[in-house]
Amino acid sequence: MHTVVRSASRTVVIGPDQPFCVIGERLNPTGRRIFQDQLRAGDLSRIELDVAEQVAGGAMVLDVNMGVPLLDEAELLSKVVRLVQGVTDLPLCIDSSVVEALDAGLAAYEGKALVNSVTAEDDRLQAILPLVKRYGAAVVALPNDEEEIPEDPARRLELARKIVDVATGKYGIPIEDIVIDPLAMPVGADTSLVAKTLDTIAMIKDELGVNMTLGASNVSFGMPHRHALGAAFLPMAMHAGLTSAIMDARTPQIVDAVKAADLLLGNDEWGANWISMFRARQAG
Amino acid sequence: MHTVVRSASRTVVIGPDQPFCVIGERLNPTGRRIFQDQLRAGDLSRIELDVAEQVAGGAMVLDVNMGVPLLDEAELLSKVVRLVQGVTDLPLCIDSSVVEALDAGLAAYEGKALVNSVTAEDDRLQAILPLVKRYGAAVVALPNDEEEIPEDPARRLELARKIVDVATGKYGIPIEDIVIDPLAMPVGADTSLVAKTLDTIAMIKDELGVNMTLGASNVSFGMPHRHALGAAFLPMAMHAGLTSAIMDARTPQIVDAVKAADLLLGNDEWGANWISMFRARQAG
Repeated sequence: MHTVVRSASRTVVIGPDQPFCVIGERLNPTGRRIFQDQLRAGDLSRIELDVAEQVAGGAMVLDVNMGVPLLDEAELLSKVVRLVQGVTDLPLCIDSSVVEALDAGLAAYEGKALVNSVTAEDDRLQAILPLVKRYGAAVVALPNDEEEIPEDPARRLELARKIVDVATGKYGIPIEDIVIDPLAMPVGADTSLVAKTLDTIAMIKDELGVNMTLGASNVSFGMPHRHALGAAFLPMAMHAGLTSAIMDARTPQIVDAVKAADLLLGNDEWGANWISMFRARQAG
Repeated sequence: MHTVVRSASRTVVIGPDQPFCVIGERLNPTGRRIFQDQLRAGDLSRIELDVAEQVAGGAMVLDVNMGVPLLDEAELLSKVVRLVQGVTDLPLCIDSSVVEALDAGLAAYEGKALVNSVTAEDDRLQAILPLVKRYGAAVVALPNDEEEIPEDPARRLELARKIVDVATGKYGIPIEDIVIDPLAMPVGADTSLVAKTLDTIAMIKDELGVNMTLGASNVSFGMPHRHALGAAFLPMAMHAGLTSAIMDARTPQIVDAVKAADLLLGNDEWGANWISMFRARQAG
């Protein structure tokens, strides 16, 4: 199954027979105090640098989140989406927990965006899916509901299926425009949690066949030597059926792991991407 | 299923619920001209250094191969097996294509060795399995026969099953003492070959449930940036069901990948191995 996202001039296809889709995660003030202060002061100069670093690192789509306490997120996200489109032709993932911000970001965007995110909660489905439909976007969907963020892979699959059923049946969104997030959890919290995420990925692949993405840095949260954990996690998740991740493209070790797994899984014909990446690095 | 190997004083258990078994591959003159010349001159001094490097890098078992053209392999292997037992307590994998050398190596070994290897060829089964039985060893088994090294995972499974049937039925070798090598092939030769190895691993796990090992460096042969390929391959293979690999423990990037995958797959309780590895590196 292929999920297609587009900017005004560039198309990216997400799918199990495609190179893994690296969604650059850095355009986000969460945990970045200096960047938050800059945004509060109306200074958007940092954004251009963040975009450049993600693009240079191999990002294929950029996630844009502008959640800053005390700022009008809708207005800021709209402004930043316009700005980012002026400096890169990569498609964008419009990321907010605020429905009005998603609406404003989508209105400012030219192309077919990814919306991050909806959950299986009824009020979120009702609020966000009409937006996804109206803008002809694709959407990241998290299998948690009002009651829980379930650990059990079978329960996650059930909630993913609920979202797919509602989105396709009630809102007429094509199934290929739903990208499930199988929920990556910190291995440091409980060493059984990552195996459950991998099982969830395999089950969603088998049962629903949809594309999947997740926040790759979650798995190593709180542990030492985080890059090595991320670099081992993504190839395993790709083998299980993950087709995309929201990740920091500034970390070569993790990007290399993804590109290596593309080659090893047969999604880099003749090894052309691998060899050209190596040559570019030799030259650089 | 648990495969147990032992030296005189140390036991190593290979199994899907155990930390991945790193079999150090460096005690092998193949492709090492200087080492070959030393061995021809009767100089065994290099071996102690090779052992120390593999042990320091995290090897849990050591593969010993002494195939040097024009030398009496049985005599040399016997001598080296004695020597290595004097400098490490790690269990050994006695590696030769020469039946007499395997016999001599096993005779010189105290403990329960791994024998590398038998194939599904009738004459190899007849020559090697009686040795395995006589010495109470475990054996690495390659699913190729007189006709071919098959690419098709289903055919590899069929040959693996033949070996298991003959070893258990005709020679009374316990199934847990058979370690199948699912055949790792160079991705540079054909970008579909590694995916076939991963499929083979998953099928053998599901159908036979036995332990598996392979030569990890094969996959990156001929490609640039080999360590990154090895570091991505092993976590995928471990996710598919691989429980051991014959690999060069001198490469931290690849050993880290294996230890990270142990943690992420739930085979490193409390992350104790991961954290102690990190602390040792900080201190070292």
